[in-house]
Amino acid sequence: MRTRPLKVALLGCGVVGSEVARIMTTHADDLAARIGAPVELAGVAVRRPSRVRAGIDPALVTTDATALVKRGDIDVVVEVIGGIEPARTLITTAFEHGASVVSANKALLAQDGAALHAAAGEAGKDLYYEAAVAGAIPLIRPLRESLAGDKINRVMGIVNGTTNFILDKMDSTGAGYQEALDEATALGYAEADPTADVEGFDAAAKAAILAGIAFHSRVRLDDVYREGMTEVTSADFASARNMGCTIKLLAICERAADGGSVTARVHPAMIPLTHPLASVRGAYNAVFVESDAAGQLMFYGPGAGGAPTASAVLGDLVAVCRNRLAGATGPGESAYAALPVSPMGDVVTRYHISLDVADKPGVLAQVATVFAEHGVSIDTVRQQGRPDGGGEASLVVVTHRASDASLSGTVEALRNLDTVRGVASIMRVEGE
Amino acid sequence: MRTRPLKVALLGCGVVGSEVARIMTTHADDLAARIGAPVELAGVAVRRPSRVRAGIDPALVTTDATALVKRGDIDVVVEVIGGIEPARTLITTAFEHGASVVSANKALLAQDGAALHAAAGEAGKDLYYEAAVAGAIPLIRPLRESLAGDKINRVMGIVNGTTNFILDKMDSTGAGYQEALDEATALGYAEADPTADVEGFDAAAKAAILAGIAFHSRVRLDDVYREGMTEVTSADFASARNMGCTIKLLAICERAADGGSVTARVHPAMIPLTHPLASVRGAYNAVFVESDAAGQLMFYGPGAGGAPTASAVLGDLVAVCRNRLAGATGPGESAYAALPVSPMGDVVTRYHISLDVADKPGVLAQVATVFAEHGVSIDTVRQQGRPDGGGEASLVVVTHRASDASLSGTVEALRNLDTVRGVASIMRVEGE
Repeated sequence: MRTRPLKVALLGCGVVGSEVARIMTTHADDLAARIGAPVELAGVAVRRPSRVRAGIDPALVTTDATALVKRGDIDVVVEVIGGIEPARTLITTAFEHGASVVSANKALLAQDGAALHAAAGEAGKDLYYEAAVAGAIPLIRPLRESLAGDKINRVMGIVNGTTNFILDKMDSTGAGYQEALDEATALGYAEADPTADVEGFDAAAKAAILAGIAFHSRVRLDDVYREGMTEVTSADFASARNMGCTIKLLAICERAADGGSVTARVHPAMIPLTHPLASVRGAYNAVFVESDAAGQLMFYGPGAGGAPTASAVLGDLVAVCRNRLAGATGPGESAYAALPVSPMGDVVTRYHISLDVADKPGVLAQVATVFAEHGVSIDTVRQQGRPDGGGEASLVVVTHRASDASLSGTVEALRNLDTVRGVASIMRVEGE
Repeated sequence: MRTRPLKVALLGCGVVGSEVARIMTTHADDLAARIGAPVELAGVAVRRPSRVRAGIDPALVTTDATALVKRGDIDVVVEVIGGIEPARTLITTAFEHGASVVSANKALLAQDGAALHAAAGEAGKDLYYEAAVAGAIPLIRPLRESLAGDKINRVMGIVNGTTNFILDKMDSTGAGYQEALDEATALGYAEADPTADVEGFDAAAKAAILAGIAFHSRVRLDDVYREGMTEVTSADFASARNMGCTIKLLAICERAADGGSVTARVHPAMIPLTHPLASVRGAYNAVFVESDAAGQLMFYGPGAGGAPTASAVLGDLVAVCRNRLAGATGPGESAYAALPVSPMGDVVTRYHISLDVADKPGVLAQVATVFAEHGVSIDTVRQQGRPDGGGEASLVVVTHRASDASLSGTVEALRNLDTVRGVASIMRVEGE
């Protein structure tokens, strides 16, 4: 074994960073044996040095992250500060000064992955980011390496633990959205401002990263259709149960049937209780992958948290250190397929639509005609009068597969019918 | 991209081999883009050339596998013939003549993994074998690379699809073992001689491989305790249901609580219906991994079949080809921890024991005394008279955690009690 250590600079020492530093210390011998050389924490860049946790040598701590990545003797920069800047500049500076980079920064990778990969490629260094998607779950490496000889057609996953906790709570207790969110906040699963989670921004960033890797194409954050889950109601869960389904916030990346384009989207959807993703409880994540040869695979585990995320960072750190010792680099960005990303209107799936309609003869015929005119085939209709009377009834329509554009046209036309008082909810049905 | 192709020799062209050849042809452009150079099928060694399938150039087919691996211009040998010989000699010969090797041979890896890794190391070549465990499920790469910075404490999995199909059938239809086996045979899930599957030999080979990788130690096939599932009865499933459990054939690899030793075993066990492994149906496989930092992870997918296994082989082929182009090798055997493998008697778990006892006062006290004398603490006891009378009753005991040696001593002593007519079944309870 080489005795001269590889030097690691840690950018950020919050929940994840402090776990990375802790494991580097407590598992130093294991890491050295697995890498073939010891690794040494050479510097820790933080914003507030007073907050650095126990176990880290104060002499290593600096507030000057730029100087740290420019030192020139750093082998690997571990970036766990998150956000776009200064992370982006620090990473490109690290490459320019000879370091490889391990990052957990989903927002940055989703927005600027191509530029960062290009910078890594020019410098001949590694950029690894297993921790950026689904925390500790090994996902990027399996997609990029284990399935490198296969053709992936679909990646569908629960990639945000906060929203899964909320939806699971609503499903199991009948709680409303706000009540479930409050509990998630109290338990530390949701942040004070939960927008990034509940509006699907976090999941959309992960969908962009996953789609790019799965399809060997570039998919930017802006390419991902996004709908949050703040409008999911107890009534939606009741409807889902009637169909033998539950509701999950899904990130879905698909290759079109003709192979010539891809789509990526994040939205709440009904999935059958028999689908493996339906049983993913609490704040866990899981990603379901469908490929030509391997068939259906699922990867399941904790999607966030300091220790799980640190596990993914350290797995990358070992790989990058091994590559450096071998004078090699791992697989870089693979975007050779250059498939266009189709708009949401082209997505084909099934829909569950609840309408409030006038309770009188002929309404069903009118509604069915609108669906037919837009080429949307109806699978089942359930019609029921309201217990409070009042001349209104509800109509639940489940469609066969249709394009999102056709469905939107249908809904638009339904809203213009005199007999349709309102569209109570529209939800996609996946996983069948 | 390099234009000179990497040359691949395929040993075996059965269900898996012919899929590998097919995908190498149909996905040639994708593979070239992912590797950075084209790959070319340079030879296919088979036993019966008349059986070689459509799509393979007859000029490539040979019955002289030894001459093929000795050619000297082969970059990667893909071994999918299975069994110990001639596979072992062909693989070591391939290394001696400059090739790297991708293998799907679990029996050989479990028995001679150390020697093969040593041969690869001496030759400076790669030995990859993702397909040897759980077919297409990316498992070896995640354990060996993604979790390289973590400490794995437990690997528990359903790694044999045939037996999972049989047990799932027994559970869902109430069928007996023989009836379920017959159906598995008729559907092609079980071979004409199902011994390797139903007696747990196949799962034990996979357990040895997984334990070695998870614990960075050498675990041989002989180190794995093995019990088949041919004696699982409908009555056992009824008992399991009473406990909110089902029965699975599990491969379990554990690090002892003090970290100083490991165990590996294969046997049927009750697991709670709420455990993620309980919902693995049909011939699917799934492996549950517990580590210090990542927590609980699960990997799920098809455990066998031509196309899924070929997917895993091709993922390895891409990695090995990339390594060759970079002049590097991937991670070799990691056995630095050199932990001893403890015997089955040291394993600590819970037990479900059904006893046929005389239906008279005092029997429960006698039985409970025997458990206490052997240091096995009882969790619950359920006692019931037989509907046919006859002076016999059944007693179902579920224990707290105890060593397998203590439990064996207990059962031995129970058999010696006059009031115990027989021990109807003993089953371990896992996953709680």
